[in-house]
Amino acid sequence: MTVAPRLHLEDVFRARRVLARHLPPTPLRPAFCLRPRPAWLKLECWQPTGSFKVRGATNFIASLSAEQRRGGIVAASAGNHALGVAHAVAILGGNLEATLFVPTTAPRAKVEKLRAFPVTVREEGDTYEEAHALAVAHAGKTGATYVHAFDDPRTAAGQGTVALEILEEMPEVGTIVVPVGGGGLIAAVAAAVKDRAPQARIVAVQPEASPSLRESIRQGTALLDYAAAPTLADGLAGGIGEIVFAHRDLLDEVVVVPEKDIEEAIVDLIAFDQVVAEGAGAVGVAALRAGLVKSAEDGRPVIAIVTGGNIDAPVLARLLQRRY
Amino acid sequence: MTVAPRLHLEDVFRARRVLARHLPPTPLRPAFCLRPRPAWLKLECWQPTGSFKVRGATNFIASLSAEQRRGGIVAASAGNHALGVAHAVAILGGNLEATLFVPTTAPRAKVEKLRAFPVTVREEGDTYEEAHALAVAHAGKTGATYVHAFDDPRTAAGQGTVALEILEEMPEVGTIVVPVGGGGLIAAVAAAVKDRAPQARIVAVQPEASPSLRESIRQGTALLDYAAAPTLADGLAGGIGEIVFAHRDLLDEVVVVPEKDIEEAIVDLIAFDQVVAEGAGAVGVAALRAGLVKSAEDGRPVIAIVTGGNIDAPVLARLLQRRY
Repeated sequence: MTVAPRLHLEDVFRARRVLARHLPPTPLRPAFCLRPRPAWLKLECWQPTGSFKVRGATNFIASLSAEQRRGGIVAASAGNHALGVAHAVAILGGNLEATLFVPTTAPRAKVEKLRAFPVTVREEGDTYEEAHALAVAHAGKTGATYVHAFDDPRTAAGQGTVALEILEEMPEVGTIVVPVGGGGLIAAVAAAVKDRAPQARIVAVQPEASPSLRESIRQGTALLDYAAAPTLADGLAGGIGEIVFAHRDLLDEVVVVPEKDIEEAIVDLIAFDQVVAEGAGAVGVAALRAGLVKSAEDGRPVIAIVTGGNIDAPVLARLLQRRY
Repeated sequence: MTVAPRLHLEDVFRARRVLARHLPPTPLRPAFCLRPRPAWLKLECWQPTGSFKVRGATNFIASLSAEQRRGGIVAASAGNHALGVAHAVAILGGNLEATLFVPTTAPRAKVEKLRAFPVTVREEGDTYEEAHALAVAHAGKTGATYVHAFDDPRTAAGQGTVALEILEEMPEVGTIVVPVGGGGLIAAVAAAVKDRAPQARIVAVQPEASPSLRESIRQGTALLDYAAAPTLADGLAGGIGEIVFAHRDLLDEVVVVPEKDIEEAIVDLIAFDQVVAEGAGAVGVAALRAGLVKSAEDGRPVIAIVTGGNIDAPVLARLLQRRY
């Protein structure tokens, strides 16, 4: 097993200089759905692609050499990273050929948006891991650069820029609650926050269907593959990356939420905040409303990063119908 | 009948200088729900209060003299203007007493958010017009300043700042589609756009249940009261103001949309753009998707202002259920 590098505040600042021209800060809003708790929502679901993934993809692709650009890029994604890559290709310009492997099980909301971009979409494999293997093979065969969705310092540093926005707008934040799939986001957020605002606690949240980070910590080894059960938080299903494992000492809590709480959080976000969140994006709110986050109990301000909003309308219809 | 003043680009620029410190521009995003038309959504539903009304309220309240502030303020609103006033009171600081009359029929999504602010909410009257009469009486009795929801140049000039953002981001815009209730927004948008980008057409949209602007133009007199039929676009129901009537020569089209199209637009915005719009906010998209906007047929870029997002979750559940 290789040991992944640690990220530093410097890496995240450097990514921010790259992104500044392309992605304005997302709103930080009081969470009506968590009242009367002193809680805020960092609305990454309002990024142009509907998720934070566009930060990392833009930072990665901006770093390519002219030669790498000529060779093209390839990525695998449950949907949001692919959208991030496609958007980055569109805004960074140039003649960059991008091939995106997306599993056949990806939400339609994500795949339909992808079709609007000048990229090649290949719906192959049943899971993220299978799409990843196909994409890596494609890179080997064609010489294209593989843009990893989470386990690359350039991707992760880009995701971490969300932490700089949070700290500027609310330096006194007590707890930041972060959804974890591959873990690129939380690794960079933790690196930046623990340097800049060490009083703030970092809480990881995963769905009960895919507690790969908790299990990795328990077993003392990064579970890069994890056989997840079906979950509304499709974007978080599967194994973690080496990078988040290398930053596990910076995490104050790892929380696991049941499906039922994720459902309720998605409905609450619509009902009280008029925010469309996908399952993966709602796990932080789910953990807070269910009282599962110990760090949030001391009355200091809490921020839940709502990482994405690309949920299929029929799923949303079914969830709303259960309550109303 | 008094003749309302004309608004000028200068008034809108002045309002913008007031708002700049408080309200960042809202996103202008490609409309996935209107593909393949060259259409964009101006997402005023993502304002901190969930609607554009916060622009006008903030501009009005920032203009109060110290003496007026001591006397307090009063407003009437179907919900969104009240939220705008409440938010302005919160961000502009000082000890400003605000009393807000909201009809008992207002959506719960709006009233529940209002309770989070340090204002007095009085749910009285069955319609906006009744709440308005009560608020005017309250102003007369107490000496409080009445903050009109649309028929005041300070309010309207604030709303018009949305046009400056549009013109800066997309100076080549061909058509701007604007929902019309009282008409403060479209009056100021038209004044600014026809000065700055006279090639752009301004299209007014009202629900079939409340075509008060179309009827006012037909009759040659501003119908300040209008007995609207029930409509999903509750925020647009009722009469228009003098101000929009004084600007009617700047409007290129006045379009009226059936309820069914408003329903479909709300669902499409959720399904394709993951945007929660209330009925009033969705009428522009409704008119475009139904092919009712003649100006939009020449292939030049079209922008629909999605004015607000405060819709009740049970209503949304019912609409989604009809399709899925």
